[in-house]
Amino acid sequence: MHKHDLVIIGGGGAGLTAALAAKKTSYDASVTLITKDPLSYSPCALPFVISGEIDGFDSISKGIEDICRNSNINCLIDEAVSIDVKRRVVETRTGEFHYTSLIIATGGIPATPPIKGVDLEKVYTLYRMEDARRIMQAAEQAESAVVIGGGAIGLEAAAALIESGLKVALIEGLDYVLYRALDPDFSQAVENKFKENGVELIKGQNVEEITGEAKVESVKVAGREFPADLVIVVTGVRPNVKLAEKAGIGILNGGIKTDEYMETSVKGIYAAGDCAITKSLITGKPMPGLLGTIAIRQGTVAGMNAVGERETFENVLGSMILKVYDMEVGRTGLTEREAKAEGMEVVTGKVKSTTTAEYYPKGKGIEVKLIFNARDKRIVGAQAIGGGGVAGKINLLTFAISRKATVDDLIKLEYCYTPPLAPSHNPIVLAAENAYRKMKRLKERAKSGSGC
Amino acid sequence: MHKHDLVIIGGGGAGLTAALAAKKTSYDASVTLITKDPLSYSPCALPFVISGEIDGFDSISKGIEDICRNSNINCLIDEAVSIDVKRRVVETRTGEFHYTSLIIATGGIPATPPIKGVDLEKVYTLYRMEDARRIMQAAEQAESAVVIGGGAIGLEAAAALIESGLKVALIEGLDYVLYRALDPDFSQAVENKFKENGVELIKGQNVEEITGEAKVESVKVAGREFPADLVIVVTGVRPNVKLAEKAGIGILNGGIKTDEYMETSVKGIYAAGDCAITKSLITGKPMPGLLGTIAIRQGTVAGMNAVGERETFENVLGSMILKVYDMEVGRTGLTEREAKAEGMEVVTGKVKSTTTAEYYPKGKGIEVKLIFNARDKRIVGAQAIGGGGVAGKINLLTFAISRKATVDDLIKLEYCYTPPLAPSHNPIVLAAENAYRKMKRLKERAKSGSGC
Repeated sequence: MHKHDLVIIGGGGAGLTAALAAKKTSYDASVTLITKDPLSYSPCALPFVISGEIDGFDSISKGIEDICRNSNINCLIDEAVSIDVKRRVVETRTGEFHYTSLIIATGGIPATPPIKGVDLEKVYTLYRMEDARRIMQAAEQAESAVVIGGGAIGLEAAAALIESGLKVALIEGLDYVLYRALDPDFSQAVENKFKENGVELIKGQNVEEITGEAKVESVKVAGREFPADLVIVVTGVRPNVKLAEKAGIGILNGGIKTDEYMETSVKGIYAAGDCAITKSLITGKPMPGLLGTIAIRQGTVAGMNAVGERETFENVLGSMILKVYDMEVGRTGLTEREAKAEGMEVVTGKVKSTTTAEYYPKGKGIEVKLIFNARDKRIVGAQAIGGGGVAGKINLLTFAISRKATVDDLIKLEYCYTPPLAPSHNPIVLAAENAYRKMKRLKERAKSGSGC
Repeated sequence: MHKHDLVIIGGGGAGLTAALAAKKTSYDASVTLITKDPLSYSPCALPFVISGEIDGFDSISKGIEDICRNSNINCLIDEAVSIDVKRRVVETRTGEFHYTSLIIATGGIPATPPIKGVDLEKVYTLYRMEDARRIMQAAEQAESAVVIGGGAIGLEAAAALIESGLKVALIEGLDYVLYRALDPDFSQAVENKFKENGVELIKGQNVEEITGEAKVESVKVAGREFPADLVIVVTGVRPNVKLAEKAGIGILNGGIKTDEYMETSVKGIYAAGDCAITKSLITGKPMPGLLGTIAIRQGTVAGMNAVGERETFENVLGSMILKVYDMEVGRTGLTEREAKAEGMEVVTGKVKSTTTAEYYPKGKGIEVKLIFNARDKRIVGAQAIGGGGVAGKINLLTFAISRKATVDDLIKLEYCYTPPLAPSHNPIVLAAENAYRKMKRLKERAKSGSGC
């Protein structure tokens, strides 16, 4: 008999990574992966297949059965219908599977608002491959489209439909696009890029109605009516907790509650990916990850721990990058608005720089913003936008936040430089110096204010 | 009278940065900059002017007098000839200047070996703009060239001359190019790139003689004779300490000894840039910076402290990047060879990855190597090579080394991902996981070896 009989529910990023991590950790463990979808792919790739940047769905997907066979993982294309926590059994459509440890990686569900007409034909979400296939088919005969939701996927979907030759309106209910990711100064540049490329942008307005008989015809918002041969509703994702909830596993803020080992309220049962709730690394407040990168790390931790390790997950900063036309947009940690809402005394540092030495002919612009808590001088968030090198900067700043780096640490950053690849003055250092001087002035003002 | 009369000797990266930092710190300070060269430019840009990638010297240079005028800094185009430490006076060709604090930023001197024929016409170093001007003029009528020295500048110079249509041989006395920067596995890829582009590479051989009557004609090495209408000797730079030494200021390992405030052995006298010796951040051993980025940071620290701050310089890791053709090459910290020479038990983690999601059509290859000290699991060095994103990774890893990050910290790295800009599995995390598993195996082997 095996020391560990690990069953994993869900073959997405978290589930499959968990299976592979468990096998790498303990090759003798018996690992069974139950997945409805026989294909492994990154949902983040779907907008780029729609746009034609990536040629077809085959190139972004691999058969899960093949992956599992290569790693000696049992794979079941099946659907789990219940978990019996007492008997340690997962019931599926075809049978029962006993486990000694279990990982729930049931992913998310599109959080579609109850708009009138949202159930009409040719109204789509964009979370799974079949959504993208249907959107591509519909786009072939379409002339106009409306995208509801100005988050990353909404923006990428709008750009993809423009690329496909459609007239596109993008509707965001909040005050600006990427509202949870960016501050308005950085969102503005993104919005301008979309307007330049012909997207009609409606902000701060909720959709009144999606009209049509059987098939969608238009979207009504702010007293206007936008014709739409298809509509994509991408207003976020919420954790899929149906199985866990039914089994009596602890739920928190709508997701499966986990500790630092990704273990749920039930010993031996782990959760990972979009279905799980962990904490904000800065505020300690519960939050879902809802990012592929987080799913991979949580899956790794859950997979290792389910076969006997004690690896920890470090909680979430929400590092994100997207490409809008020729512009890279990245962010991590808290926005300025969020930091203020947490009661922090916020000081920001901002700089406009270039991706190369300023005189190098192929250089592009880049703008970096750092958000500090003035009380302990720690960095709590960052945003960057520009023609290149954004991912590397965001990853460095994410690491800096997780290591509790201060403005003093960042102005001391050693960095590399060569005219074709980087400016002689690193933009992060310049932005930190900007914040450093602001903090110094604040301190001097506070001193003189108190009469010293 | 001013509270501070700051005199700075040298208008290169360190000196000019020091002047500007002093003024930003204390606008009331009197700051006098003495510079022989009236132009400010980055020597790192010179190879790219020679290659024609950057159009002319004007675009890379600014007048130092203009910069100083804008910041209310006194600028003297003059040469300092001595420092009288007792009287606190700098003597120049034209007069005497009293200081309350002094910054020595006299830069470096090309460390040209005593090869026979090195004084012939058309044998050049490549450290100053006039060197680059002469090389460009000589290259116009030349058919062949030899570059002596396979460091970063030597490689860039060789590529620039190939670009100018010359037949080029590159001679490196050590076993491989970028010997102090990279391990042989990474140097190999650089060498291949140069061979592909037609550079003849001779390694592990010292030049016997540079031949010619008045003008250079050939370079003899390893029993062969390479015709050369011009020769560039770029075998490194050593600190220029003439003034400091004459004034009795402490010298260490051939450079001006400084403490963490960039202060020399004489109170009130600071040194910054290529002339100064600081310490390796990892080994604590004295070393010069000899990089533009280090000069800028040291200049900032010296400038601030010379007018009353107590800012510190964090010592040197030696982060470097260069572009060879379409390949980015970066490194930081110790090489594997250096780490072993320090007595460390070295474990490396290596990964081949891509700059985008692996299926994204425009992705390029990238390879990352991390070097760990197995005893405390800390990262001590890193190398990366590939088609993009190298600078960002090297900067992150430099920060990780300076923050004493371990392999466990790096496998927990949160990072951003989107198919057009980054793979779903971050290469740094993958390389760290590779090292993590090797360390685990080492530990298990050690346990079983001891009979436990």
